[in-house]
Parts: sequence; C-alpha cells; structure tokens
Amino acid sequence: MTQINHQFRLAARPVGMPKRTDWKYVEEPVRQPGDNEVLVKTLYLSLDPAMRGWMNEGKSYIAPVEIDAVMRAGGVGKVIASRHPDFKEGDEVYGTLGVQEFATVQGKTLTKVDSGLAPLPVYLGTLGMPGMTAYFGLLEVGKPQPGQTVVVSGAAGAVGSVVGQIARIKGCRVVGIAGGEQKCDYIVNQLGFDAAIDYKSQDVKKALREHCPNGIDVYFDNVGGDILDAALTRLARNARIVICGAISQYNATSAVKGPSNYMSLLVNRASMTGMVVFDYADRYADAMREMAGWLAAGKLKTREDIVTGIETFPETLLKLFKGENLGKLVLKVA
Amino acid sequence: MTQINHQFRLAARPVGMPKRTDWKYVEEPVRQPGDNEVLVKTLYLSLDPAMRGWMNEGKSYIAPVEIDAVMRAGGVGKVIASRHPDFKEGDEVYGTLGVQEFATVQGKTLTKVDSGLAPLPVYLGTLGMPGMTAYFGLLEVGKPQPGQTVVVSGAAGAVGSVVGQIARIKGCRVVGIAGGEQKCDYIVNQLGFDAAIDYKSQDVKKALREHCPNGIDVYFDNVGGDILDAALTRLARNARIVICGAISQYNATSAVKGPSNYMSLLVNRASMTGMVVFDYADRYADAMREMAGWLAAGKLKTREDIVTGIETFPETLLKLFKGENLGKLVLKVA
Repeated sequence: MTQINHQFRLAARPVGMPKRTDWKYVEEPVRQPGDNEVLVKTLYLSLDPAMRGWMNEGKSYIAPVEIDAVMRAGGVGKVIASRHPDFKEGDEVYGTLGVQEFATVQGKTLTKVDSGLAPLPVYLGTLGMPGMTAYFGLLEVGKPQPGQTVVVSGAAGAVGSVVGQIARIKGCRVVGIAGGEQKCDYIVNQLGFDAAIDYKSQDVKKALREHCPNGIDVYFDNVGGDILDAALTRLARNARIVICGAISQYNATSAVKGPSNYMSLLVNRASMTGMVVFDYADRYADAMREMAGWLAAGKLKTREDIVTGIETFPETLLKLFKGENLGKLVLKVA
Repeated sequence: MTQINHQFRLAARPVGMPKRTDWKYVEEPVRQPGDNEVLVKTLYLSLDPAMRGWMNEGKSYIAPVEIDAVMRAGGVGKVIASRHPDFKEGDEVYGTLGVQEFATVQGKTLTKVDSGLAPLPVYLGTLGMPGMTAYFGLLEVGKPQPGQTVVVSGAAGAVGSVVGQIARIKGCRVVGIAGGEQKCDYIVNQLGFDAAIDYKSQDVKKALREHCPNGIDVYFDNVGGDILDAALTRLARNARIVICGAISQYNATSAVKGPSNYMSLLVNRASMTGMVVFDYADRYADAMREMAGWLAAGKLKTREDIVTGIETFPETLLKLFKGENLGKLVLKVA
C-alpha cells in the first residue's frame, strides 16, 4: 500500500506577512529510500523566525527555498526504513526534514536523539538549534563576564530564554525584554531573570536606564528595530552586541529600519557582531552535553509551545511574528 | 603692553550646519601663566569633523564645549612664557589650544614637537590625532591581513588618506571612496590606492562590486549614511567595519540614518566596532615613530589644506562638511 505524504511547498515569495496563498498544501506518494538514504516519519517540526528569511530571494547565509520546493524546517522523527548503515527502523533522529509528514533524506544529514534523555520537542529547542544559537552566540560572541549586565530581547522565545538562563549560570545580571505581562512574569518568576521589560506597555529606553544602572555589557538581539535602538542608548564601555536576529523587520515591506543610534558604538568603544549557529557545528555535541547537564540539574528550564496538525502550518508560523508563542514554537505532525 | 587674544567662543548650539551666529568672536587680554602653566602663541589649528559633535549637548566620548567657552581645538604653537619646568620660551608644542591666538594652559597637557623633523602642520595631521586615529583604528580594530581588501570612505581626508596608505604598506588591496574627480585622482595617482570610487558621480554599490570582487575584508568608515549602507552589501565573511566617524550625519536635523543593511553583519559573521583614538594615548609615541619612518622613506605621503586667518574659522570649518578640503584641514593663525 502506497503511503501518502502531505507537504507544504512554497508557492510564492511573500510580501510582508506570509499568507495562505504563499503556500501549496500538496500530497505525493512517500518515496522509498535509495542507497544511503533513510525514510523518516516526521513527529515534530521546529518553527523558527529564520524561516521567514529563507522564503526570500537573494544571497544570505543559506540558499533560499526555491518556489515549488518543500519548505525547509528542522524536525525530529522516527526512522521507518533505512538503507544507511548507521540508522535502523525505530531510531529517533533530528534532521532538516521539511514541512512534510515523511522525509526521505541522506543518512549523513541526520543525528540520533534520545527521547529517554529529554522529550523529543526539546531537541528542537533548548537542545536544538535555538539552544546552540543561544549558547555560542552568548558565550563566544557576547563573552559575558561574571557581574556584568546582559540584556536579551525576544526573552521569552526559544533563543532568548536560554540566553538569559545561561547568562545567569555565568554569574551575570540579566534583563529580558519581552511582549506582555505573561511573558515578563515567566522569565522572572520561572526562569530567574533579574528583571523584565514589557516592550508593549513600557518605555524600553527608560526601563533600561532603570534596570541597567551601570549600562549594558552584552546585548543579545533577536528583534532589531526600535528595541535595538533603545539598547544602543545604554551601552557600557566596551559593550558587545550580538546580532542573532531581527524579527521585527522580517516582514517589513519598506526598507529595514537601521539602528539610528549606532554611533553609540563609537562613544562606548562597543561592537556589534553577527553570528550564524552553523559555524559552531563541530562543537554542538560538547554544548549539548553541557546544556543537558544544566537541564538535569534544574539550572536550565525549557518550555515548548506545541501546536498540533501539519495543516495548521501557515497560521502557526505566524504566531512567531505576532509574538504569540511562549517558549519554543513546535508543530506536532504525528 | 597688554597683548590681545582673539577667540572664537560658542554662542549657541547649532541646528544643522553651524552658522556665524553660533559663534562669538571676542577679544580679551592675554593671561600670563601661573604655576605650572605655559603661555603658547597659536600657530596652526586643527579643524576636524569631530568638532561638530563637541558643539552638541549630551553624553559622548568627551564633554561638550560649554556655551560661552572658547571652542576646543588641537593646535601647534610656540611657547612665549613658561612657569612649567619642562618648557621654555621658543619651544614648539602640540596641545588643546582652542580657537584663539594665545593659550594659557597646564604644562602637562602639552607635547613637544620638532619642526626640524616635519613641518608643524603635519603634527596636526599625519603625525597628529588623525594619523593616530588611522593607525590604531586600522591596525587594532580593522586588523587587515596581507592580500585582503580594505575600503575607506573620506579617503582623501586627514584620516582616510592615512588609512589607505597604511593598508597598502601592510600589503592590502585598497579602494578609497571620495567626492569628486580631483580627490579620486589624488588618492590613486599620488597616494597609490588601487582604486577610487567617486560617490558624487558613481553608483557606490555597483562600483564596490566591481572593485571588490572578493568582498570587503575591512571597511573603515568616516562618513556613515548611504555609503556605509553600500559597503554593508559587499562584506566578505568575517569582515570588520571600523566606525571612526559619520560626517554625513553630523549636521542632520532629522534622525540619523541608521545602516539599513546591518543584517549583513549576521549573514557574513561580520563586526562593526567603534573606536576613539584617546584610548591608545600610551602608544602614540611608538606609532609616531613608525609613521615618521614611513614619511622619511617616502612610503607615506601627507598633505595639508591650509587656510590663513583665525577670523575665517566659522567658514573654514564648513569646508569639512562640504567636502571641500583635500588632505588635512589646517587653520593658520599666526
């Protein structure tokens, strides 16, 4: 009996927020694996702000998703057939499975995961790309020192929540910027941040002045726009800004808002540095081991916002841009 | 007989380009030096883009010039009376003399210079703050490697012309951005830059694509605005942007134009770092020795644009913002 594979393919390059009509929801027969290939049944898909960038044309850190191609997405799933020596039926794996129910991929692109150590969705969040991004972006680019002040935007999201917790583990004072009372409450009372700023109801610049009396030593930016500009006004001498994302600008239909206050970099001898997690791939295993230790010790908390049903993908993705997710946004496929 | 000291004092904080009415041209008797003070007759004053920033209120890397205070300026002059043990009548000195004919200052703020080694105006340019800025900004922040591509804006100015020449000395390919045919001709044919881009007549983005086929490894920015944005589109992997100035924005009456293309820092794992020359004060002497060696060997060329007459100060300063100076702008006072 031929199995059916439902997929979301990119129908058009979106202008502004992606619409339903930018997608094609199609089905095709599941393709059996060839030599060195593995057939994976998708269980959970990672929904990430970066996906919006992959839908655009033009040079970036990764090739754009072509029109008519299956939308790129990381996911975890179960091997149901393998012609690669390292994988067998029943193995749990992480890989770039795409927004589809079944993925037939080269075995070498997969990594084994273990649902006995952590629930599978955690491998898409804290023990996955967002966690790795937080870990290497903060520690390698931000280089926080004990006693310094770390500010992170998108603080209740998959990356930001981990950035703040690692900064706490490293002995920093941590201020998170997030939208809404629930998120602010979460990062302070559940995750142990020292303070939260609600950008929806507070004057961010004023609040940063209050919560960062000695200035910001590390600003980890996930959002860009006005919040980046506000952070620039409070830099401490030799501050480091980590540019990880700019979610406020991803759906902009006019020119991106550049940071008007960038000359604060000069005044404060500060730097602003971009990072892409893939550059640290050869150190993921070590980082995951350390993060898993922190998880086990209760020093690091993880939270996933799980939505069920692959057919909801277009609308579920938008939760990211509307700031509706709390923790890592995951699409449960099967 | 009492000597008269003509001075320019700040009358008002300018909005946009400084006007004559933002200044007061006054005279007062020359003040004789007290203990540890030195009386200096100003010979040449340094006119620098940074002076525009000093006229504004608000926190910066240096305190603003107060209303009614003598305008701050570096200068070289001759000691005419000294009550400091290190200085005697006739000594040639560099110091923050201010826009005035005579300065009575603490001896410890002065540095001796030698017109036998280099003409005095050179101590305001290539062997002065602009030269130090170029040297430390390029070498310490830009960190160019032999064979890499260095791009500098304001390339015919006091800082930019030295940046490009040092980059050539270090074995880099150097592209200068300047305004007008004369400046472009100067940096290529007199200073040995590999290429020049005339931002007044050329599409900078397109020209950078042509002249930097492998991307920009170091971009030394003196101008900000659209040129910074154009440079961001051509960064090589791990590029370093040195933020030294933003002359295009200093007289802006609306919000500063932030760099819209800053997410190129992420795509290219690049950094943008601010620098202030004063941080390297304890190494000026070494740098000056090396630069003087390059000057003597003909590897480094220096050019001053000298205007005579302290009374022309308000208009002469504007040459900087109109891009009318070629080389270091110097006001000859006496």
